[in-house]
Amino acid sequence: MNESEFINNIKSRYALNKVGDDCAVIFKDAGTDLLLTADMLIEDVDFRLEWTTPEFLGHKALAVSLSDIAAMGGEPRWSMLSIGIPESLWKTDFLDRFYAGWFLLADEYSVELVGGDVSRSPSGLVIDSVVGGEVTKGRAILRSKACVGDALCVSGKLGGASGGLKLLEAGARISDSTAETTIELLLRQLKPQPYLTLAKLLQSHSVVTSMIDLSDGLSSDLHHICRQSNVGARLYSHRLPIDTDLTPHFEPEDCHQMALNGGEDFALLFTVAHKNISVIESLGVTQIGEITGNKETIEIDDGRKTLSVLPNGYRHF
Amino acid sequence: MNESEFINNIKSRYALNKVGDDCAVIFKDAGTDLLLTADMLIEDVDFRLEWTTPEFLGHKALAVSLSDIAAMGGEPRWSMLSIGIPESLWKTDFLDRFYAGWFLLADEYSVELVGGDVSRSPSGLVIDSVVGGEVTKGRAILRSKACVGDALCVSGKLGGASGGLKLLEAGARISDSTAETTIELLLRQLKPQPYLTLAKLLQSHSVVTSMIDLSDGLSSDLHHICRQSNVGARLYSHRLPIDTDLTPHFEPEDCHQMALNGGEDFALLFTVAHKNISVIESLGVTQIGEITGNKETIEIDDGRKTLSVLPNGYRHF
Repeated sequence: MNESEFINNIKSRYALNKVGDDCAVIFKDAGTDLLLTADMLIEDVDFRLEWTTPEFLGHKALAVSLSDIAAMGGEPRWSMLSIGIPESLWKTDFLDRFYAGWFLLADEYSVELVGGDVSRSPSGLVIDSVVGGEVTKGRAILRSKACVGDALCVSGKLGGASGGLKLLEAGARISDSTAETTIELLLRQLKPQPYLTLAKLLQSHSVVTSMIDLSDGLSSDLHHICRQSNVGARLYSHRLPIDTDLTPHFEPEDCHQMALNGGEDFALLFTVAHKNISVIESLGVTQIGEITGNKETIEIDDGRKTLSVLPNGYRHF
Repeated sequence: MNESEFINNIKSRYALNKVGDDCAVIFKDAGTDLLLTADMLIEDVDFRLEWTTPEFLGHKALAVSLSDIAAMGGEPRWSMLSIGIPESLWKTDFLDRFYAGWFLLADEYSVELVGGDVSRSPSGLVIDSVVGGEVTKGRAILRSKACVGDALCVSGKLGGASGGLKLLEAGARISDSTAETTIELLLRQLKPQPYLTLAKLLQSHSVVTSMIDLSDGLSSDLHHICRQSNVGARLYSHRLPIDTDLTPHFEPEDCHQMALNGGEDFALLFTVAHKNISVIESLGVTQIGEITGNKETIEIDDGRKTLSVLPNGYRHF
């Protein structure tokens, strides 16, 4: 059983109707819904200390949760941040630098740290980031409302974070002598930027029918939209906005695979009714395909043939 | 630096005015405040799998957070539960049993699981429990409002959880042949009961001036009240409600030390103006001392002499 199957299992066994989207949507008051998201980052699974800096890690711990708030069309408000830290790191300036990175991003979006926990960890570093946000009542953008015929769009470029990871695995690091395009790719992996400003614009236009953030990878995250909306999708290979910083480092086929299955770009994947596409054309997003009635099936058209796409992004189990 | 000092440091550096009590108090709507608390439990630091059952651990992961909501006089509403789990445990029925224990307690207090995260952990099990609750606007009971002359009271018995821990360390386990009083002590450690019902009663009487739950131990938790209220406290040794289940297992002096410094009883420690003490007398609480003007100083009167008490409860660092 993978983690999605496990969550669906618990969800149905205990009738949990708020579980299963980027955020839970909770009643706050007559005009506003509260959004809640949690992300656990574990050393040597989700990050490696020798690849990053404490500041980048603090940034990323918050960014991944802000991206979930963005994916619902919401605005972040507060965070509860829990950290399990080995004694060896506790004795250094690690946490001071970690919080410096965290607060630099938090201040940018006026996110208030309201609590959390600090514990000792006998092995690696563990971070749990919980962020609360707000959205106008009933206006959270869910994964479950994509309609057959909708255009499928994505913000930003694809595959960069995955390319950055491959470079890190191969030994690349950020230093004074590192080439500019290499640094760009490494930063896509180490210091991702949440698409909160775009999400707010998309939300204000009221034309987005479904949305998710690309954390596991396009093929897997699109599969979530398809499953939860009970639809299928067709992608056009030549329209995928492959990160151009990948080109000097990787073969074209590898770039394509990273755009399709690589995780952690934290771009927004969303659907819009075809008649409304003109509303969002000025926002610098890319239409990469469309929603079909071919339930839970994703196809990709490479101009000559159509292939089926399996959810092949990141899984913990 | 211990974790309290670290948190105070971050709190003052970044001007975090919602950090430092059992829960953060957040604006929800005109009539209600939202309460938020987080507790991270890490294998081999906060629990040992060979000492407990998955069901007890699920119970305790929620109970420790419910106790924080109780300590503010609030009522719990929802939880975000994140789990980092080793692959070896993932393949067993561990999580099914963990959630069964969690939901048994959650259902008792109508707590809804609204989200969380599941991640792989390369070493031990990690749990982060975040609970949201509610309290009437402006009526959260803080640590900072104890007044000189207030009576100092505690719910329940003291030292039982600490005694249970010592028995576990010495090899005791729950089985069909375990003596009843041993089982009682082991359960105080493994399956603590949050004092939510009492907390609600205390809150409704509007006489409690400050409150905290006993998680680290009386001496440490009382020190938090004294520091945050800018007062001191005097305890009366003979009034400490030492758990009678300790008596067959430990020497009187050890029982006294466990009542004073042992963690995880999750009883409520609170202050009440002397003129209001009659209001709460029927609630089965014990007056163990009083608040003094001797700032941040805790004394204990053993009937013959007065000794000073240092915060000597549990610390991660």
